Amino acid sequence: MQAARLHEYTDDMSEALSIDEVDRPEPTDPDDVVVEVEGAGWCQTDNHIIEGMWTEYVPQELPLTLGHENAGVVAAVGDEVELVSEGDPVICHPVQTCGTCRPCRLGEDMYCENSAFNGLTTDGGFAEYLLTNERAVIPLPEGVDPTDIAPHADAGITAYHAVKKAVGELNPGDHAVVIGVGGLGHIGLQCLNAMSAATITAVDLKTEALELAGDLGAHHTINPENEDVPDVIESLTDGTGAAQVLDFVGADETTGYAPDVVAAGGDHHVIGYGGHVHEPAQALVNGEFSFRGTLVGKYAELQELVALVDHGEVELHTSRYDLEEINTVAEQLEHREIEGRAVVVPP
Amino acid sequence: MQAARLHEYTDDMSEALSIDEVDRPEPTDPDDVVVEVEGAGWCQTDNHIIEGMWTEYVPQELPLTLGHENAGVVAAVGDEVELVSEGDPVICHPVQTCGTCRPCRLGEDMYCENSAFNGLTTDGGFAEYLLTNERAVIPLPEGVDPTDIAPHADAGITAYHAVKKAVGELNPGDHAVVIGVGGLGHIGLQCLNAMSAATITAVDLKTEALELAGDLGAHHTINPENEDVPDVIESLTDGTGAAQVLDFVGADETTGYAPDVVAAGGDHHVIGYGGHVHEPAQALVNGEFSFRGTLVGKYAELQELVALVDHGEVELHTSRYDLEEINTVAEQLEHREIEGRAVVVPP
Amino acid sequence: MQAARLHEYTDDMSEALSIDEVDRPEPTDPDDVVVEVEGAGWCQTDNHIIEGMWTEYVPQELPLTLGHENAGVVAAVGDEVELVSEGDPVICHPVQTCGTCRPCRLGEDMYCENSAFNGLTTDGGFAEYLLTNERAVIPLPEGVDPTDIAPHADAGITAYHAVKKAVGELNPGDHAVVIGVGGLGHIGLQCLNAMSAATITAVDLKTEALELAGDLGAHHTINPENEDVPDVIESLTDGTGAAQVLDFVGADETTGYAPDVVAAGGDHHVIGYGGHVHEPAQALVNGEFSFRGTLVGKYAELQELVALVDHGEVELHTSRYDLEEINTVAEQLEHREIEGRAVVVPP
Amino acid sequence: MQAARLHEYTDDMSEALSIDEVDRPEPTDPDDVVVEVEGAGWCQTDNHIIEGMWTEYVPQELPLTLGHENAGVVAAVGDEVELVSEGDPVICHPVQTCGTCRPCRLGEDMYCENSAFNGLTTDGGFAEYLLTNERAVIPLPEGVDPTDIAPHADAGITAYHAVKKAVGELNPGDHAVVIGVGGLGHIGLQCLNAMSAATITAVDLKTEALELAGDLGAHHTINPENEDVPDVIESLTDGTGAAQVLDFVGADETTGYAPDVVAAGGDHHVIGYGGHVHEPAQALVNGEFSFRGTLVGKYAELQELVALVDHGEVELHTSRYDLEEINTVAEQLEHREIEGRAVVVPP
Repeated sequence: MQAARLHEYTDDMSEALSIDEVDRPEPTDPDDVVVEVEGAGWCQTDNHIIEGMWTEYVPQELPLTLGHENAGVVAAVGDEVELVSEGDPVICHPVQTCGTCRPCRLGEDMYCENSAFNGLTTDGGFAEYLLTNERAVIPLPEGVDPTDIAPHADAGITAYHAVKKAVGELNPGDHAVVIGVGGLGHIGLQCLNAMSAATITAVDLKTEALELAGDLGAHHTINPENEDVPDVIESLTDGTGAAQVLDFVGADETTGYAPDVVAAGGDHHVIGYGGHVHEPAQALVNGEFSFRGTLVGKYAELQELVALVDHGEVELHTSRYDLEEINTVAEQLEHREIEGRAVVVPP
Repeated sequence: MQAARLHEYTDDMSEALSIDEVDRPEPTDPDDVVVEVEGAGWCQTDNHIIEGMWTEYVPQELPLTLGHENAGVVAAVGDEVELVSEGDPVICHPVQTCGTCRPCRLGEDMYCENSAFNGLTTDGGFAEYLLTNERAVIPLPEGVDPTDIAPHADAGITAYHAVKKAVGELNPGDHAVVIGVGGLGHIGLQCLNAMSAATITAVDLKTEALELAGDLGAHHTINPENEDVPDVIESLTDGTGAAQVLDFVGADETTGYAPDVVAAGGDHHVIGYGGHVHEPAQALVNGEFSFRGTLVGKYAELQELVALVDHGEVELHTSRYDLEEINTVAEQLEHREIEGRAVVVPP
Repeated sequence: MQAARLHEYTDDMSEALSIDEVDRPEPTDPDDVVVEVEGAGWCQTDNHIIEGMWTEYVPQELPLTLGHENAGVVAAVGDEVELVSEGDPVICHPVQTCGTCRPCRLGEDMYCENSAFNGLTTDGGFAEYLLTNERAVIPLPEGVDPTDIAPHADAGITAYHAVKKAVGELNPGDHAVVIGVGGLGHIGLQCLNAMSAATITAVDLKTEALELAGDLGAHHTINPENEDVPDVIESLTDGTGAAQVLDFVGADETTGYAPDVVAAGGDHHVIGYGGHVHEPAQALVNGEFSFRGTLVGKYAELQELVALVDHGEVELHTSRYDLEEINTVAEQLEHREIEGRAVVVPP
Repeated sequence: MQAARLHEYTDDMSEALSIDEVDRPEPTDPDDVVVEVEGAGWCQTDNHIIEGMWTEYVPQELPLTLGHENAGVVAAVGDEVELVSEGDPVICHPVQTCGTCRPCRLGEDMYCENSAFNGLTTDGGFAEYLLTNERAVIPLPEGVDPTDIAPHADAGITAYHAVKKAVGELNPGDHAVVIGVGGLGHIGLQCLNAMSAATITAVDLKTEALELAGDLGAHHTINPENEDVPDVIESLTDGTGAAQVLDFVGADETTGYAPDVVAAGGDHHVIGYGGHVHEPAQALVNGEFSFRGTLVGKYAELQELVALVDHGEVELHTSRYDLEEINTVAEQLEHREIEGRAVVVPP
């Protein structure tokens, strides 16, 4: 089968991955599941992996098939698999977990001590078939197209996971700020709307992104090129600040808003990455705010997000590409030229 | 009456405050309370105020009587005060709050929109008498000496407040790290012990501090001069890290432990300040940990701490000084020469 | 001024209250606020008070002006009142609290140890003027009509308060059941919709109530006269049950649904009253469900509800009556003949 | 092997179970684990099962080997088991769960949709060997004797689970009441002490039980034969009531304390069963308290309890019996003649 693989870390996206012919995976363990991939979302993290930015955080062996946002149809299952059968449409949580370590037992499967992450620590789904396991697949409700929903496997649950943490702290009348209305942010915004009655302000540098934000339910929008973000938030909140900030960008500049923008006792959720968090300890003490790192969401959260999609609460803006166009996608995302989320469709 | 006042910001602690003769305060508002001060704890924040380190965070007018850790006996009350009467021994929460703004109504009185902070934004209690209000005083249980308990008014509740946030996330078997076993840390450690069944590791540069930690219930101790903190924590926790870290130091070096020390999903509470928080956003994302700024605790938390003291769960290591020795205290703390907490006793 | 007063407990609603001429209240305490009443909602609890059903729970002296759902315009204030001035439109939380007891300091003002409850333990607002205090009034946003919003002062926040507790336990895809779509239930339903992404099933005996429920966002409706409630819930939830049940009726029959309807670990919120909770302890253990009593919401929750109203998330179905029609209202409610909420408008 | 089996429901404990010769179980599924039983605690629930009291709640087929509190040594494992190997000492959570249903994925394994409960819905551990699975066994720390720890498998985690819910709501100075200091209660009391700084009052009809309670950390004790429970609690709490009540008895009389004993907003945890919960809905509303049913604790909670035991925080009072004495044990418990927990030791 065909698979888009990384052979060498590089900053040149135009030749990042090569389309190789590799063996189609088969189930060997009793809980193995092989999925015929119908959609594979391209993520900013794929660019970061190609640049070698994850090598100091996780073990990684090249060559590696990238791709961690997959959905498709079950092609084969191991002997003990009961949740799905051949032919079932599924979305694939990107992490294969063990189910027996303490984090798994607590429901915190993202902290699994024996996990494999598709396209990051094991072969992923920019390929015709993906080998995963029973604990990583979720059957799709009738009427949901695997290709359409694929990006929710990572972009979706990452946004959802952060929003869920924020929603628990948001009362009606409170203010939430969404920084970055791109692949993740436009999902996060919709989740925030569906799950809370907070007042939402969206921040982005692109006019179209802010228009989209307005369409998806943002009450206010700010373009930092034209307005001073802390000033506007201060004015919108009568000086109290925003109870929750969801930073889907994670640049030096956006994390730097925190002391001036986050309300006392509030949180600045760091979802996007690339920049730094850098503040005097005194600033955190004085405002009693937190920088809260946010990882991919849990399996159960992907179930919840699928329910939101099924209820029509979250729509995904996607554009489709063939597998051989994959480096074009990589380049375009690098130059911020992708509208919505790019979904690669294997042959 | 005599009061120790700051006339000019300075780095020279030997002549930081002058003992002035000022008018004794009288109640003017119906909820005013005047307290004859019997004990006034000296805090690292007093040094920071003298250095001018708070001018960019709060409005401040000099000259100012410092002192925010007070206890004593009620000397006079306004017409509408019902909670206390003349002669009652009380501990004084450092913040005078309004009771009607939304944060006050939520019980989050530290976020009061109309507050005054003793010794920081209004005259404090390094003086014979302190003017405060009904919402800031807590009657003491019988048998509790105001001079002994005074430092709990700030050191105590700040430590307690942080510990209370941590305790909510600590299960038996989980690991907590206390960095800095000084004025706040030695209280925090005891609260942690009383309120959780976590395994506790204390970190300090001073041997005596680590011995004290052991006496107060730490299961393990680390001196960073002799051992690598992340290595020891990793080994003590079988590689999972510490669920909660309480950083009573807040230096660049101590906040820098976070990515290597905090367990996935855990918190690094920033209580001490002076240094910076500085990490790649990716580190927070990868470990899904938080830097959580921590302010002084709430009025209701001071009630809870007084209950802990009353039950013999928290003992305070103090040494007493006369008001005229106040600059000596300032200097000694600067040079880390104070054992336990210094309490100034006005004439 | 005119006031509708209860002189004697009775089951005969046709002559429950008499319109008396009484003195208009004036502010005497520095935090007193006198409100000219523009709207006073009639509540099922008013019927219960008339029947003497509250005498064993709270101290009550007759004659008593009833009425605990008020909004109007500030007519006079005590010397220390800063939150409002004469002429400000306000909604009145039904409970006047002290602000200094521990529950008040925790933000749990409904548990105030020194409170007065309008129309229950002190004179209420079926009158031209109401005497209350600063801690009980909330300024209304521009454009909100006091007469229209009055019932939110009790019906609204009671429903909101229960829903807020439920929402914290409801994930997308979870099921919530609203029993009783009357004065409180139709508000609760809208709050549930605004603040969660749960699937909602409404239960009521009246067809019009179920139609209203559908209009306000219920996904499913059940009329117990035609269908078996547990059977339908079981089928709608694939046998897992409803995570949260909001019982605005509180009859023997409705609390009796719990063991068959509430999901494992879920809650049956008892908001309405009149009947009993009666189950074997084993049933609660086996299903690990709770019966959770729910009182009127807090002051801060009324602020949040006003924000919801201001954002257009909750509309109130009301009908207006003159003060002299008050016993007619009492009777009609007794016979379930009131559509939406009755609001009494004093002369 | 020998196994104590129930052939017929009966109220006569003297001939409740018969010691049968049955086949020793072998692992057939890849995650099966066979444990050689070294200790099997006898539980009040065993009496209830014998009486047929669980037939309407769970599916049950007779004959059935009873016993759900087991610890021992791994005798054999299925092919895919990685957590334990032959010879490992383990404690057995009583519930075998699937790991793939949504409750399991949330960490709520007690709500598993495909579970088997040892000695209740499948053969249990009053036998030489017990067949269970990988997800139900927890390796024991060195130095912990399986026979001693066995009762924690159910009595322990049930008590721990309830206490953990209560502890989250208990601040220093708050009051907790433990009703019933028997097999579960004496464990719960110690957990409460280790995990909170609450003031604890123990209630029991037996003088020795109250003495034990005092030794294990209760601050006050009440014998309902001599004192009025609500009166004493009211006096101990200055009229506010107990924030949390842990009812390990669950009789009509003990649940009936709730309206008079539970503080506003507090909880009455129903852990023991046999009687009923019976109150007017108005009582729950007026006091805003909850009756919270409490089931056996989760697997992860058993891990936490084992950590508490390992740290010396919880000691268990046990007495040992041979397998052939099992009906004597049943009878003695029925007559409340067992001191501490009876542990049956198979040959």
